[in-house]
Amino acid sequence: MSKYSDYVTYIEEAIRAQSAPGRGLASLCDPIYYSMTAGGKRLRPVLALMAADAFGGEEGKFTARDAALGLELFHNFTLLHDDVMDGSAMRRGRPSVYGKWGTDAAILSGDTMLTMATECVSHVPGDLLGRVLGIFNYMAIRVYEGQALDMEFETRRDVTLSEYIDMIEGKTGALLAASLKIGALIGGASEEDATRMAEFGMNLGIAFQIQDDWLDVYGDAETFGKPIGGDINNNKQSFLLLTALQSGTPEAEALRAAMAMPAGDAKVRTVTNIYNRLDLSGHVREVIAHYTSAAMAALRATGLPEEARTPFRQLVDKLAGRRK
Amino acid sequence: MSKYSDYVTYIEEAIRAQSAPGRGLASLCDPIYYSMTAGGKRLRPVLALMAADAFGGEEGKFTARDAALGLELFHNFTLLHDDVMDGSAMRRGRPSVYGKWGTDAAILSGDTMLTMATECVSHVPGDLLGRVLGIFNYMAIRVYEGQALDMEFETRRDVTLSEYIDMIEGKTGALLAASLKIGALIGGASEEDATRMAEFGMNLGIAFQIQDDWLDVYGDAETFGKPIGGDINNNKQSFLLLTALQSGTPEAEALRAAMAMPAGDAKVRTVTNIYNRLDLSGHVREVIAHYTSAAMAALRATGLPEEARTPFRQLVDKLAGRRK
Repeated sequence: MSKYSDYVTYIEEAIRAQSAPGRGLASLCDPIYYSMTAGGKRLRPVLALMAADAFGGEEGKFTARDAALGLELFHNFTLLHDDVMDGSAMRRGRPSVYGKWGTDAAILSGDTMLTMATECVSHVPGDLLGRVLGIFNYMAIRVYEGQALDMEFETRRDVTLSEYIDMIEGKTGALLAASLKIGALIGGASEEDATRMAEFGMNLGIAFQIQDDWLDVYGDAETFGKPIGGDINNNKQSFLLLTALQSGTPEAEALRAAMAMPAGDAKVRTVTNIYNRLDLSGHVREVIAHYTSAAMAALRATGLPEEARTPFRQLVDKLAGRRK
Repeated sequence: MSKYSDYVTYIEEAIRAQSAPGRGLASLCDPIYYSMTAGGKRLRPVLALMAADAFGGEEGKFTARDAALGLELFHNFTLLHDDVMDGSAMRRGRPSVYGKWGTDAAILSGDTMLTMATECVSHVPGDLLGRVLGIFNYMAIRVYEGQALDMEFETRRDVTLSEYIDMIEGKTGALLAASLKIGALIGGASEEDATRMAEFGMNLGIAFQIQDDWLDVYGDAETFGKPIGGDINNNKQSFLLLTALQSGTPEAEALRAAMAMPAGDAKVRTVTNIYNRLDLSGHVREVIAHYTSAAMAALRATGLPEEARTPFRQLVDKLAGRRK
């Protein structure tokens, strides 16, 4: 098993088997089932399964199944709570749990998912339990910190690029890193190799998030799945905005003026023109390439043979070339 | 160490040492510190420490310290999220985290407390880790189910007494039971004795909750710490209301009419008079005595010598006689 789609099929089946409806109180479980079967890239569980396979072969994968499920549960738990905090009534093209059931259900089903996630991740061989649980809990705190920083940034005008990277390390990188590290350990990786896989995941996560910021401006609305310029219209701190604001050029001033414009096509056009004059698209693609290279270097530093590294390389290529 | 107040002092010190401010992101940690240092009975950590002491002596207590902290963190996490769901801006005589910092902080700091709680509870000897974590996660799911039922009940008119007991078993009993069971296991109790301690805690929790319902009507406002009749004015499902509604007497009809009255002293007086005509105070005190006896029977069924059971008996007497 090595194709991304095979891993997705495998994890989708595990999800449906585990969170089938009718397995508990409907008011708690229906939102969980709804959220868990909404699709998505399944990036986190796939990374865990891939790492377990890479270090442990077929045997690793089966032991990693519950941990992979737990990591996807954790990811979806954060989406439930984030949607309440952001007031997002839509998610993946349909009502979010918050939009469909309201605040109380999103909070309480989210709490339940966090506990279920912890429980799933705990289904590892006993000698790994303490180690894996420590990685999982540490990761979770990093994710909350990332979300807290993201909210703090909304009211700040002086966020630096380094603070921004710190935020996305927590909000996106930490969970990818933990997924790979936990998967690798389950597959039998040494502590050193597991740490290198985490480094691979952290750099991949940063590249992934900056790519997301880039797609908001330079993506294609149809394939991206959401309107272009959403970040611009919301004056959202993004890698592009912060880079432009900190460019020390006259364009930074022009950008500040543009941010005061009302949301709309004119604002998106104006800001995009400023970004173009700064050649931000090319610069940001270089930054993405930098983090992607760092990820590949960490991967090469593991003891994994060329063949075992291939699925990860393919994944990086896929994500780097993604348009959604 | 055997007096309740000594245990409280011990756990208060542990809380201040662990959640001191300045140990992380302020927007996450300030609400946690505020919540954890708000006082309260500290019933859950005290039960864990008492159980560890009873089965393991002084040595048990120190191993149980982090687990006790974790159980108090879990309890306070549920308060943070419950206050959002209930829209409660006040808690323990001062603004709740929700009232002081708002929804987002209450959600996110609560999430952080749940992860911290899991992490603390995981600091048990390796051979106990899987077992203790399983008890903790199972308890957490029961608590969420209890809260979900409690919310469901708000819009239902046909809640039975048995459903009500099921709800308070989750919302209150499960955590007391888990605190005692985890403490006992850390102290070295056998699986059978740990289960009996859980049974002691579950019955104690039910008695405690029904007592709370009784105090809302028959307590003294000054010592109870909140206005008498709050449940009556909110038409809140309580053990008294459900018993009266299911009494099959003409008073049940009178009660339904009284529930339609606007909140106020007249409503509280009218409903209290109905309860008095049904001699509910006496009946409910008998029910409390029944659960208290069941708790004591479970305690006696353990292998604990008389002396080791004394602190628990004193605690039951204290709770049974409490007026707040």
